Amino acid sequence: MKTGFIGLGRMGSAMAANLLKAGHEVTVFNRSPEKLLPLIELGALEAGTVADACRGELVITMLADDTAVADVAFQNGGIISVLPKGAIHLSMSTISVELSKKLTEAHAQAAQQFVAAPVFGRPDAAAAAKLFIVTAGNPGAVKMCEPLLNVLGQKTFPIGNTPASANLVKLSGNFLMASVIEALGEAIALISKADIDRQVFVDLLTSSIFNAPAYKIYGGLIAAGRFEPALFAAPLGFKDIRLALAAAESLRVPMPLGSLLHDRFLRLLAEGGERLDWAAIGGLAGRDAGEPHRV
Amino acid sequence: MKTGFIGLGRMGSAMAANLLKAGHEVTVFNRSPEKLLPLIELGALEAGTVADACRGELVITMLADDTAVADVAFQNGGIISVLPKGAIHLSMSTISVELSKKLTEAHAQAAQQFVAAPVFGRPDAAAAAKLFIVTAGNPGAVKMCEPLLNVLGQKTFPIGNTPASANLVKLSGNFLMASVIEALGEAIALISKADIDRQVFVDLLTSSIFNAPAYKIYGGLIAAGRFEPALFAAPLGFKDIRLALAAAESLRVPMPLGSLLHDRFLRLLAEGGERLDWAAIGGLAGRDAGEPHRV
Amino acid sequence: MKTGFIGLGRMGSAMAANLLKAGHEVTVFNRSPEKLLPLIELGALEAGTVADACRGELVITMLADDTAVADVAFQNGGIISVLPKGAIHLSMSTISVELSKKLTEAHAQAAQQFVAAPVFGRPDAAAAAKLFIVTAGNPGAVKMCEPLLNVLGQKTFPIGNTPASANLVKLSGNFLMASVIEALGEAIALISKADIDRQVFVDLLTSSIFNAPAYKIYGGLIAAGRFEPALFAAPLGFKDIRLALAAAESLRVPMPLGSLLHDRFLRLLAEGGERLDWAAIGGLAGRDAGEPHRV
Amino acid sequence: MKTGFIGLGRMGSAMAANLLKAGHEVTVFNRSPEKLLPLIELGALEAGTVADACRGELVITMLADDTAVADVAFQNGGIISVLPKGAIHLSMSTISVELSKKLTEAHAQAAQQFVAAPVFGRPDAAAAAKLFIVTAGNPGAVKMCEPLLNVLGQKTFPIGNTPASANLVKLSGNFLMASVIEALGEAIALISKADIDRQVFVDLLTSSIFNAPAYKIYGGLIAAGRFEPALFAAPLGFKDIRLALAAAESLRVPMPLGSLLHDRFLRLLAEGGERLDWAAIGGLAGRDAGEPHRV
Repeated sequence: MKTGFIGLGRMGSAMAANLLKAGHEVTVFNRSPEKLLPLIELGALEAGTVADACRGELVITMLADDTAVADVAFQNGGIISVLPKGAIHLSMSTISVELSKKLTEAHAQAAQQFVAAPVFGRPDAAAAAKLFIVTAGNPGAVKMCEPLLNVLGQKTFPIGNTPASANLVKLSGNFLMASVIEALGEAIALISKADIDRQVFVDLLTSSIFNAPAYKIYGGLIAAGRFEPALFAAPLGFKDIRLALAAAESLRVPMPLGSLLHDRFLRLLAEGGERLDWAAIGGLAGRDAGEPHRV
Repeated sequence: MKTGFIGLGRMGSAMAANLLKAGHEVTVFNRSPEKLLPLIELGALEAGTVADACRGELVITMLADDTAVADVAFQNGGIISVLPKGAIHLSMSTISVELSKKLTEAHAQAAQQFVAAPVFGRPDAAAAAKLFIVTAGNPGAVKMCEPLLNVLGQKTFPIGNTPASANLVKLSGNFLMASVIEALGEAIALISKADIDRQVFVDLLTSSIFNAPAYKIYGGLIAAGRFEPALFAAPLGFKDIRLALAAAESLRVPMPLGSLLHDRFLRLLAEGGERLDWAAIGGLAGRDAGEPHRV
Repeated sequence: MKTGFIGLGRMGSAMAANLLKAGHEVTVFNRSPEKLLPLIELGALEAGTVADACRGELVITMLADDTAVADVAFQNGGIISVLPKGAIHLSMSTISVELSKKLTEAHAQAAQQFVAAPVFGRPDAAAAAKLFIVTAGNPGAVKMCEPLLNVLGQKTFPIGNTPASANLVKLSGNFLMASVIEALGEAIALISKADIDRQVFVDLLTSSIFNAPAYKIYGGLIAAGRFEPALFAAPLGFKDIRLALAAAESLRVPMPLGSLLHDRFLRLLAEGGERLDWAAIGGLAGRDAGEPHRV
Repeated sequence: MKTGFIGLGRMGSAMAANLLKAGHEVTVFNRSPEKLLPLIELGALEAGTVADACRGELVITMLADDTAVADVAFQNGGIISVLPKGAIHLSMSTISVELSKKLTEAHAQAAQQFVAAPVFGRPDAAAAAKLFIVTAGNPGAVKMCEPLLNVLGQKTFPIGNTPASANLVKLSGNFLMASVIEALGEAIALISKADIDRQVFVDLLTSSIFNAPAYKIYGGLIAAGRFEPALFAAPLGFKDIRLALAAAESLRVPMPLGSLLHDRFLRLLAEGGERLDWAAIGGLAGRDAGEPHRV
């Protein structure tokens, strides 16, 4: 399938590379063009404009946030104005429910298709094609995306016809992940102040009742107090919690744990934690217990 | 090893049965004697008093709470007054850090040994000998307990010389588990109000980034709003959160998520949820979002 | 001073009436014209359009929310497009910091003056000219507003040159007020469950250490569980807490009590409390303590 | 009336002095006898033991906490063992509901009377006889205390026959006061980060809608970041919040704002704030907003 790919950050670059390696024809676009080179070496075609990436049957966007996606979608010469009728915008970024609804409507009015397919997984999972992908949209359109999605991830979960549902599921997943970080942060602060070895505690938990990657990864980072370099930066984590809470507010769902996470991120950023991994909110409980400030 | 076993609730009965099946000589005591029969059929000896269960090299206690353990330990004719010098009190109940410290001291003064070995696992895991066991105490004494512990659980984690450390680790584990319940409760309330199928959401998560039993079990219960019969009753869950927070208070560790859980349990009990599973705190977020009251 | 007045809700009607009684020439505008009559009887001139209300040296807006203010300010034929150069827009509504900044900039570009002067006080205080008014803006412009403000309120507090500062102070004041409601709600739930008379408790407090109107008014409402009719409706209270938290988020100030209030309002509205007084969040603590649901 | 007075801290000394100045015969006892001198100069009789202070019709206790009160009441030679039948123990300390119930029962069994009369007010209010006093107990006994209470305070509030009710009201009042501190702390952090002058903000509020001493005193301390010397030390404030939450837990009343205050105090103490005024929890919001650490 002739595919455009817009957004070559760490996630997007790894994903586009996998599509190329699987033999797909991919035309890539990125605002800062230096990201294009490694992909061109893998056989990608270069798009000079957003429009150049929208000449096939499908264009993927994998961008940092709502602003970036809205920009490439709604600007003059943006996706909505140039994508052929019937073609698909496959949106894999983590965006708001609100923007997803706007895109759904705008694409429908332009007789285009809109599929939301946000992913779970960090850049290493993207590179290894081990992403988990949640899809939602018109079933026919979702079906057309499948060959590509199968290249990008280890499993795809169709969640219904409303694209925004996939985005909400993704945001809820990140809320759950941040909850793990907060819970581990508090538990580790507690046992640590009783002179129990932090890493032994994490190993014990993750060899028994919490035998899941999230607990291993974040438990290890918090136990070590090691929040740099960021694999998933705190401002991005904050963005996702804010988007989850924005959806919750408009649906009138109080989420007190969500509010706690929101306030943790706000504090982390107020204290200058912009470049830290989002796991750094898991270090705040220890600080409040009187541990020396490591940030 | 000649072993006493005090406390034949659902956990204790299953554990004592496993010891008997493995060929250990076990003298069992329970306040309400009707629990003795099935074990006597398996070959257990009957103890008429606590003292009768304390005539061997080791006595196990597996009781509901601090009060019950303090009672059999400190009463006239209790464990501390009758256990032979050098013999071991192997405490497998979930008790407070404070009581664990008192028992450590009292047994030391009586020239007895005290080993804490709380367990992770519900009654079905106890029956299947699939418990995870955290041990702490004098290394020689812990070593002597190992043959028994290997019969009772799938894995044992020694955590140091201070018995109270094992109790704190157990309480911290239950805090983490209750955090999973709260986080799932809020996430499910959110996606549910957006008309996403609750069980599909849980299946998706637990087939991908949260592939751990806790998420499957509690996600399923919350999705179904099914909190009876209780496998682990709300008052017991509340007790554990209270004990974790009591330890945190005395160590001066603020745990805001712990406080949220505390308040959730208090509300559940104020509303009459005594006989529900502790997973029922995961139903409160949905109620606050305007869902019909199912409790 | 020739003055326009836009927005004749319960607050605006009372305020415009006071200006008329004090002898000011006031041209009034309201979207629903039936509100005009009582003021015309007091001598007001009728404006058929927003522009008609903008022909003097000063126009006051007293509207329900950001949307309403932005609408009369930025629409075609709105205040910014019709107010004479040098004339003053005196904004007395409770609006967001963000909108206040936008208005400041837009008026500056149109060579007009913008003064923010939000008020503390319910409709009865407006009628009695007992409002407290916080002002911010260009000092010369603020000075020109003073004769009017002196008619409307019992005291005016100039807070600086940046109009948005006055709006932030107003939002902070409402946050403090909602905090009083929440605190009283929890305290009354507590003493009430110990069979202490609620009203006796409130009287005691407000005759001693909390001798302030807020405690009397809200304590009385919560003690009685009487939240209708609304003097200040829950959706308006929620709006103000949201605007305070929006300002806090953009300034990176975590406000955990603010988050608690946010979640209280969200729950109240999810449960159908739209028409209740905002004091109704003070009834939720009692409900969580197992009191019968009175809403 | 022949009166004993036990506990000559800053509050007790001021109160005993007022009784002496009003012409009462007062026998004073304090663990550290150097506090006795200034009162002896005012005419007090010296008690060498608790029993010496219990020879009249009434003995007042004004001590720091539960432990101190339980000690003088229940020890060998303590109040309960020596107070004449029919005589009154007038307990003015801030103690737990639980201890108040125990004292009520023990005095009843000893055919003595127990009246709880905790006070609102700092040492300066005690010295100026401006305390507010909440009383509860047998009406006849309360009536007998009145002449003394009228000397000590500006107003007395009888709240019923159950002494513990007065203690709960006192704890609830301190909870409300700490809520004011937290709310002011968050509001001041917010306006301060928007470059609004903190003291101007406090003056504005306390000249308008929050014209109450609590707001003036604590607003001023927080605005100035001045938490030393402590008028009411953080550990005492923490104690009162803990006692309020203990009562709430046993009555099953969730108090989320109470939990927030609990965690604030725990953090303050973990960070070394033992000697600060309890208003220092009002400085934490500013710290979390990135303000330089002043403690």
